[in-house]
Amino acid sequence: MLSRYAKETRVLVAIDCIIFGFDGNDIKLLLVQRGLEPEKGRWSLMGGFIRPEESLEHAANRILKKNTGLENVYMEQLLAFGAPQRDPVERALSIAYFALIDIHQYEKQLSEEYHAEWFLLKEVPTLIFDHGEMVELAKNQLRYKAALHPILFELLPEKFTIPQLQLLYEAIYDASFDNRNFSRKVLSTGLLIKQKEKDRLNSKKGAFYFKLNKHKYADHLKAFLNFIPNPEKFMTVENKL
Amino acid sequence: MLSRYAKETRVLVAIDCIIFGFDGNDIKLLLVQRGLEPEKGRWSLMGGFIRPEESLEHAANRILKKNTGLENVYMEQLLAFGAPQRDPVERALSIAYFALIDIHQYEKQLSEEYHAEWFLLKEVPTLIFDHGEMVELAKNQLRYKAALHPILFELLPEKFTIPQLQLLYEAIYDASFDNRNFSRKVLSTGLLIKQKEKDRLNSKKGAFYFKLNKHKYADHLKAFLNFIPNPEKFMTVENKL
Repeated sequence: MLSRYAKETRVLVAIDCIIFGFDGNDIKLLLVQRGLEPEKGRWSLMGGFIRPEESLEHAANRILKKNTGLENVYMEQLLAFGAPQRDPVERALSIAYFALIDIHQYEKQLSEEYHAEWFLLKEVPTLIFDHGEMVELAKNQLRYKAALHPILFELLPEKFTIPQLQLLYEAIYDASFDNRNFSRKVLSTGLLIKQKEKDRLNSKKGAFYFKLNKHKYADHLKAFLNFIPNPEKFMTVENKL
Repeated sequence: MLSRYAKETRVLVAIDCIIFGFDGNDIKLLLVQRGLEPEKGRWSLMGGFIRPEESLEHAANRILKKNTGLENVYMEQLLAFGAPQRDPVERALSIAYFALIDIHQYEKQLSEEYHAEWFLLKEVPTLIFDHGEMVELAKNQLRYKAALHPILFELLPEKFTIPQLQLLYEAIYDASFDNRNFSRKVLSTGLLIKQKEKDRLNSKKGAFYFKLNKHKYADHLKAFLNFIPNPEKFMTVENKL
């Protein structure tokens, strides 16, 4: 029997995965070389088409794993890209997903057989189709969220120093911050608990370790009007990066 | 010639439009009765399938206009919904778009020929497919954004009273706020400029009118760390509701 929607147009739907990583010093972007024509061999996000029976999240995980070996990465849906000519072969929508991960934590999964490579975010090569636009949008989304929420702490080890935290913020915003000013402002949030030990590897004077105050962290989110105590409770899974 | 992607699956892609409106007292949701089987006659968001040559934004505008007569409503992309069985006829992805509008401003466009109806957000009927889930998500997104950014002022007339503003916040959060506390907190933002005249229609004592301080409004967005002066600049078109 013909479907009731028989006259409607059906289109290809791809998923593209934008994986940002932090290695302790720099923010990087994971890329692969495209395996098929057109644009074979050029740098690309990890992408593929959805299958008839899978959800979008399932497709995103399958496609990421197939291209890179990475598993159990929590990705957030960014945006559906639907310009009619975005893929020169045939109309294909793409739903972009993104995540920010700790590079060291996933090192083993990202084995050589996959040929996926980390690029410094400042030195990303030209990408196929509209992938450059997807990366720009994901970067902005990350900066926006990191300015409003202390999400970046999740990329640091349990004990970290202020210079490490500063490196992370500088990498995300592609900017340099004044050390003293940075330190003063971060400490004034009351989110950090000073430890007794110092990191003596990275400077003569040493830098005290800090831990995140997890209770405060959970309450921290500042509301525009304080009578809405915690906007976080209105965040859905899709918004939680 | 066969497409290089010949073996891949093509699916239907729908757009569904979630239009919230404020009429000065209440937040409402615009709905239509579904015109085709399955679920014909049941309440639904304004939806339709994308056409071969149109962008997603174009499709969203066309579909909203066709169903309601509304034009030039700036809608933001919310999320792509892709559960394989979400439409019982055939797999169809849906990309949900949403907007919050001033009901009075669009009154004329929404003529009777379209049969679109406003429902109190607290009294929305059961909707077809996953439309209820879409509305919940859009509501949360709205609450989240309204808690962090003074976006709701844009729904009020140029001169408004504190009780009017309170009604709007109460409608969005489906909560009652203490009048004095609300007034004190809103005034402490420094965003409002007191006018000389009072509104004497809604209470014996009268309530002073206020205007929004537009300069302050533009700078107001609070950053988690103050050295990132204005996260707004990282917001893209898609995030600006």
